[in-house]
Amino acid sequence: MKGKLLMPALILAAGAVSAQQIPEKSPMPMKPEMTEVWEPEIPVITPGEKYGDAPSDAVVLFNGTNLEAEWTNDKGETPGWKVENGIVTVVRGTGIIKTKRKFQDFQLHIEWRTPAEVSGNSQGRGNSGVFMQERYELQILDSYNNRTYRNGQAGSIYKQHPPLVNACKGPGVWQTYDVIYTAPRFKEDGTYFTPPRITVLQNGVLIQNNVVLRGPTEYIGIPEYSVKPHGPGSIVLQDHGNPTSFRNIWIREL
Amino acid sequence: MKGKLLMPALILAAGAVSAQQIPEKSPMPMKPEMTEVWEPEIPVITPGEKYGDAPSDAVVLFNGTNLEAEWTNDKGETPGWKVENGIVTVVRGTGIIKTKRKFQDFQLHIEWRTPAEVSGNSQGRGNSGVFMQERYELQILDSYNNRTYRNGQAGSIYKQHPPLVNACKGPGVWQTYDVIYTAPRFKEDGTYFTPPRITVLQNGVLIQNNVVLRGPTEYIGIPEYSVKPHGPGSIVLQDHGNPTSFRNIWIREL
Amino acid sequence: MKGKLLMPALILAAGAVSAQQIPEKSPMPMKPEMTEVWEPEIPVITPGEKYGDAPSDAVVLFNGTNLEAEWTNDKGETPGWKVENGIVTVVRGTGIIKTKRKFQDFQLHIEWRTPAEVSGNSQGRGNSGVFMQERYELQILDSYNNRTYRNGQAGSIYKQHPPLVNACKGPGVWQTYDVIYTAPRFKEDGTYFTPPRITVLQNGVLIQNNVVLRGPTEYIGIPEYSVKPHGPGSIVLQDHGNPTSFRNIWIREL
Amino acid sequence: MKGKLLMPALILAAGAVSAQQIPEKSPMPMKPEMTEVWEPEIPVITPGEKYGDAPSDAVVLFNGTNLEAEWTNDKGETPGWKVENGIVTVVRGTGIIKTKRKFQDFQLHIEWRTPAEVSGNSQGRGNSGVFMQERYELQILDSYNNRTYRNGQAGSIYKQHPPLVNACKGPGVWQTYDVIYTAPRFKEDGTYFTPPRITVLQNGVLIQNNVVLRGPTEYIGIPEYSVKPHGPGSIVLQDHGNPTSFRNIWIREL
Repeated sequence: MKGKLLMPALILAAGAVSAQQIPEKSPMPMKPEMTEVWEPEIPVITPGEKYGDAPSDAVVLFNGTNLEAEWTNDKGETPGWKVENGIVTVVRGTGIIKTKRKFQDFQLHIEWRTPAEVSGNSQGRGNSGVFMQERYELQILDSYNNRTYRNGQAGSIYKQHPPLVNACKGPGVWQTYDVIYTAPRFKEDGTYFTPPRITVLQNGVLIQNNVVLRGPTEYIGIPEYSVKPHGPGSIVLQDHGNPTSFRNIWIREL
Repeated sequence: MKGKLLMPALILAAGAVSAQQIPEKSPMPMKPEMTEVWEPEIPVITPGEKYGDAPSDAVVLFNGTNLEAEWTNDKGETPGWKVENGIVTVVRGTGIIKTKRKFQDFQLHIEWRTPAEVSGNSQGRGNSGVFMQERYELQILDSYNNRTYRNGQAGSIYKQHPPLVNACKGPGVWQTYDVIYTAPRFKEDGTYFTPPRITVLQNGVLIQNNVVLRGPTEYIGIPEYSVKPHGPGSIVLQDHGNPTSFRNIWIREL
Repeated sequence: MKGKLLMPALILAAGAVSAQQIPEKSPMPMKPEMTEVWEPEIPVITPGEKYGDAPSDAVVLFNGTNLEAEWTNDKGETPGWKVENGIVTVVRGTGIIKTKRKFQDFQLHIEWRTPAEVSGNSQGRGNSGVFMQERYELQILDSYNNRTYRNGQAGSIYKQHPPLVNACKGPGVWQTYDVIYTAPRFKEDGTYFTPPRITVLQNGVLIQNNVVLRGPTEYIGIPEYSVKPHGPGSIVLQDHGNPTSFRNIWIREL
Repeated sequence: MKGKLLMPALILAAGAVSAQQIPEKSPMPMKPEMTEVWEPEIPVITPGEKYGDAPSDAVVLFNGTNLEAEWTNDKGETPGWKVENGIVTVVRGTGIIKTKRKFQDFQLHIEWRTPAEVSGNSQGRGNSGVFMQERYELQILDSYNNRTYRNGQAGSIYKQHPPLVNACKGPGVWQTYDVIYTAPRFKEDGTYFTPPRITVLQNGVLIQNNVVLRGPTEYIGIPEYSVKPHGPGSIVLQDHGNPTSFRNIWIREL
């Protein structure tokens, strides 16, 4: 800062604000050093060299091999999904996969690709999903020239928040989600003290802007009615029967 | 979704939650279609091909040439900064540059580089800044092996919020800021109805997580005491006397 | 604390927090005067002499006589409700009454009484309601020994938020609502920028604690799906067919 | 609306919003019963008979006698303040008094009176204070015809939030504070996850509307720099040297 801008305040339209109501500053001047905070030093990390590379403080959840190091299926067993050429792909009927570790608040990077060969439509094309804390779904779908309900397309918080824009790439093309997730906190009566909140960039474009979740994802019914207290949870990837693929998954706990 | 997860609720530690207090669902079942919302269709945009490329709905503020198309100096004249090889660099003493357009809520992408030749220390090394709405500064500094006050280093909301981590690259290396900014709204008495909020990723790493600004950036004094109502404002880049460079700047109004 | 002493926050304070992460103060000391703000002087009002009396800056909406000064029916005509002995009572079939003035954010005081002669049950006993901005209902009902759905009893934000406790007095006894209401603000796409929020004390007991409304009150369906932009609106009192009475209604714009 | 009819929200509603952007409802109709929630029943309490009377679920902290049942001085000993005629009065030099119980979120009712015999001015007249969780002060002062700094007068959150209006009664007259307090929650780094929030009605008039506290009360310096994690805490009443009196204090944990 320093060498400040001389910026006359813009006046709100219609002159509705009385200048009288704007507090004036304290009469006793301060010095610049009074608003410096030096300690403790901010932790230093090494960012990825290029976009998508995991920073030094991330947990790499999938780097192209060895899926079972960090993931299980729903029964805690080795996941049935196929790992090949650095990519993991849903194998229909083997069920979800979930991280062994459990997370609270986090930044998540994940790359995904719907099948190049288009088949099905609406919810039946390239359907999968990323669940935060096992409960809150960020939809994955081939939403490129594939109309479905707006609160169920790619990038939606399923049946709660449609994406701000449809920023999808086509089938067979890798796409990215960068997620900032804040877990709920609970009151003693089992309801939310603060509800979950999520921000998502898809392919670098903001599609969810710190939206407030109303409750766990519900295929049928009203999310508010399903709120129950929970602690940290796994990241879950959904088997919805379509051979959607994933790569380069990492997470930073916040 | 569909084919839901059977997920027994985690019990909060210490059993402090009375199961009695958790609402039970309504007894009359619903159907999946009741929570589908189809209209209107979500607007389709084209994301950048690779990270950093402007999406189709962005305003490109600087693409390497023709700075004066979108920017002026503080007096509304042609900016005095140097454009060369697709890069714009601060020219000491020519003052700030600011966008001709004014913005409210937005997503901003900007790339910056502090001088390869290190000179000065603390606030004197590679110092510049990005101001939201002409008032709220996201600090730019060479904070690679250069200790300064934590609420004044690169990635800080200057003198209000230190970055969560120091995710800086070294001098002479290009770095990125991806900013999600929500402008304040005002009450009729001139105070904030909702204060400004900002999220920042530096080099792909979350460094500001939806933090609430206390008021305009102040080099001296307390931000709260300087709150005054304002409308949309320019993006301002600071001349702090160091030849910091910029490239690839685009913005999407939200 | 009702024997809830082993709280996560305490444990956290005692152990999990690294002292290193707590910022230390600036080294340069300040003086007390630096944080005093003297101007402008806070506006002086005269509070009511005893509880329930309108303060000097309130708009008295009903003081026992002359209902038509501030209220109309739904068609803008003289209301059909009965005024007698300083009390106004619903006349079945004459429809709602609404204030001629429209309001945004406010503090509202209202006193109400369900019929001393109990008849009907569940939603059929003493049913009425106070609507903020013509859209958001705070339920009035005889909920004294009269079970109904929890999100529809007296003190509920109808079908959105049950009251924290049932603080009702019996039929024929005057009760009070003290309401603090914050109107929604809207984004340009017609959705909420900030949703409505409401705090309610019933008979001096907090029953709604700054709850966030999901949308307009809906008897059938999901409030979120009905959000539409609106400006200031009337206070509306509902004719639900029961002879519920009101008195001493005043409001302060915030 | 005090002639403020040309409001942006109205204009926005009338023109700037594209009808296309407002979601339409789901096409499959629901039934009213689908949004009823019946279980569990809301807990029934008995409100006070008249305003100020403690409801059945309150902890009575002072009912006119036996101060030592619920209070100690700062050393954990019997408080040195004077109890007489159902009133407790500060005895200069005996120090603060604090509740033996510790509280998190709560509703608090407290009645106070500054000395009928006026002496001193500005901060020197009838000065005392109510501290939430031992850290966050709601100012008590004789602010009737007694100018002081706006963020330090009666009803201020001391040096953080001035009251919305000056709703004071005169010296020697009983006044009431009704407080709704939400305690902060903390992140693992020792900063606020959610900051404290407070709503205050003074003599029935809203003077603090869910304001966010920046940190503990500081006589000197900046509250943000003093944030440290803490658990539940006592209610503290301040000895500021003036013989301010109190009566009828009760609290409800939320």
